[in-house]
Amino acid sequence: MKKIILSVMMLAALSVSAQQRNNNVPSFADAVEDFKPNVTNQPGRQYPMVNSQGAVRVQLRAPGATSVQLDLGRRYEMTKDENGVWTGTSAPQDVGFHYYQLIVDGTAMPDPGTVSFFGAGRWGSGIEIPSDDMDFWQVKNVPQGSVEEKYYWSKATESMRHCYVYLPNEYDKNPNKKYPVLYLQHGNAENEYGWSVQGHAGQIMDNLIAQKKAVPFIIVMDYGQGQNIHLVGQYAQQQPQQGQQGQGGRGGSNDAFSVVLMTDIIPFIEKEYRVYTDAQHRAMAGLSMGGGQTRRITLANPTKFGYVGMFSGGTISPEDVNGANGFKNTAKLVFMSSGSKENPRVMEAAEALNQMGVKAVGYISEGTAHEWHTWRRSLYQFAQLIFK
Amino acid sequence: MKKIILSVMMLAALSVSAQQRNNNVPSFADAVEDFKPNVTNQPGRQYPMVNSQGAVRVQLRAPGATSVQLDLGRRYEMTKDENGVWTGTSAPQDVGFHYYQLIVDGTAMPDPGTVSFFGAGRWGSGIEIPSDDMDFWQVKNVPQGSVEEKYYWSKATESMRHCYVYLPNEYDKNPNKKYPVLYLQHGNAENEYGWSVQGHAGQIMDNLIAQKKAVPFIIVMDYGQGQNIHLVGQYAQQQPQQGQQGQGGRGGSNDAFSVVLMTDIIPFIEKEYRVYTDAQHRAMAGLSMGGGQTRRITLANPTKFGYVGMFSGGTISPEDVNGANGFKNTAKLVFMSSGSKENPRVMEAAEALNQMGVKAVGYISEGTAHEWHTWRRSLYQFAQLIFK
Repeated sequence: MKKIILSVMMLAALSVSAQQRNNNVPSFADAVEDFKPNVTNQPGRQYPMVNSQGAVRVQLRAPGATSVQLDLGRRYEMTKDENGVWTGTSAPQDVGFHYYQLIVDGTAMPDPGTVSFFGAGRWGSGIEIPSDDMDFWQVKNVPQGSVEEKYYWSKATESMRHCYVYLPNEYDKNPNKKYPVLYLQHGNAENEYGWSVQGHAGQIMDNLIAQKKAVPFIIVMDYGQGQNIHLVGQYAQQQPQQGQQGQGGRGGSNDAFSVVLMTDIIPFIEKEYRVYTDAQHRAMAGLSMGGGQTRRITLANPTKFGYVGMFSGGTISPEDVNGANGFKNTAKLVFMSSGSKENPRVMEAAEALNQMGVKAVGYISEGTAHEWHTWRRSLYQFAQLIFK
Repeated sequence: MKKIILSVMMLAALSVSAQQRNNNVPSFADAVEDFKPNVTNQPGRQYPMVNSQGAVRVQLRAPGATSVQLDLGRRYEMTKDENGVWTGTSAPQDVGFHYYQLIVDGTAMPDPGTVSFFGAGRWGSGIEIPSDDMDFWQVKNVPQGSVEEKYYWSKATESMRHCYVYLPNEYDKNPNKKYPVLYLQHGNAENEYGWSVQGHAGQIMDNLIAQKKAVPFIIVMDYGQGQNIHLVGQYAQQQPQQGQQGQGGRGGSNDAFSVVLMTDIIPFIEKEYRVYTDAQHRAMAGLSMGGGQTRRITLANPTKFGYVGMFSGGTISPEDVNGANGFKNTAKLVFMSSGSKENPRVMEAAEALNQMGVKAVGYISEGTAHEWHTWRRSLYQFAQLIFK
């Protein structure tokens, strides 16, 4: 989250002060020269590249520019050749997916080399630092589910809203079968595209189902950025105080997304799709801010969700459980995960819940930080544990 | 197409020569001051804006830049205020959707104000110049179909390929009903996202079906840029000569996309979805390059498609029909459309086909050019005529 918030701030403050310039660092000089094109490059683009150390190399043709930097949270100075092509190389990055941008004469812009991702509050560039275990989220020639874009009427906002729904391959082939549902939320300054695009949720599920490691279930991915959800009428009164959004903390027991989820999204899904409607077939999970929302929403609706997942999104304590009447009997599993490079207390939190009789699993993603590879791995683990 | 090709060339040639600079024009001085935020802006963004004349006004904070232009095919000079904010205004634009970019010290970049679209060969900015008849493609509170993302194995390329499938709202509710299929293709330097995102195909269909103006059918939208489709093995031998892609002309009767469509896409759709498999329930249409592909593919497979649509994508002549054995008896409708600001010969072409006994409809989109509003209107017309 730190890196994402930093990038949002940088986008807001486009002017480059002398102070900021002094904080820029030179290109990484000791890079191993085995760079390969990034996997999310646009067709035919060589740059950006990544090497075996996880260093990122970018190029931009900008003969008229007087300074260009690569901004990966930290800003690396790029240098211009005689053809006006700027090149820069970052220090080694954590494995996984990172948002980044280029700074041309002080103005932030996406790298034209990569496809466009929504994160850090804008459509922009992304880069994938390969990990040893990328296989589980690749597109494979196994029975393919689908991710469908769906609009629905929201009473709480009096508007058409937009979500994505993952359907397992067998869904259309079993017209009389009902399925469980996982409501799966993105992080701060991301949106409903994130889990399918950066997260590869569909591929993770298709591969797990093909290996019979997960039971087929539906995933609903919606837009949860509370400050952009405008509740109306009676629903506006349920809106939390400002400043409680996105904290993942203990302050709020409710937020604008929670109102939309309970009022509109769940009823819509349970009407539109062949799904079970009891708590034992309903899960909620989220990453970072979405994990905090999962915590608050499941505790505030303690008999509604059988499975709870928080990926880099805080923990649930025995006191939380004791304060949420019915949660203890309803929750079949509380899953709490973290990258090992974050500040994980998830194993201790799971142990405390297990001691009070709430089944809980802690998971630490080894070698990863607060980014999408931690969350892909978390979904991969969580999906194998639920609805069984 | 001209504007799109121009933009691609500009992206390729990032350096600004003195000659090019001299071609830049000043900001439009006589704009009516009733600018409103563009409908495709990112949440919370005021700029870009459009006024009642169809003029575009953009802003970019870039204190370090020495020149900034708005590039809408033509480049408009922007001016900097004391806070380092650049503002520029274009001349009035044709109604509909336009790709554009900003040029900062000679380097092209997307406008951070809009969401990101794939067109002109890259993810970049887009702007919607409102028209009087925008209503038919708006998201409305009517029964909503879905647009689903689907991967499938392609024998012809030995890879997983990616398409979007529009399913009408009733599809899941009628597990024993079969549906007709329209294969609908994008234009040059666009991709399989285009028809759903810029084209609003899903909304057009939902609204038509809700009004009972179209029968429910499925739409398949795939990636047709031939030079990026790498056929393998026996299929590579079916590849056309270079230079025949995207011409929409009469040179090629086949291309790489045609091989993938006939080998992989149609069999996949007919296996995966509940669809009719005869020519009378199969249509193909496309815009611009996709119209040319439709022309070549339907003439080369003259007994496979009952309905043929070319939107700003050329015409079919009596000689074409006579050279394509079976086409005359199979084709229930040839639909040819054009914006009135293009060079339309579609009415004459339709008349010639009708005279030889092939039912044909010409459609001229009044007041529009070679862009998406022409094609949305074309789909709106075509969809009401097919499978009836």
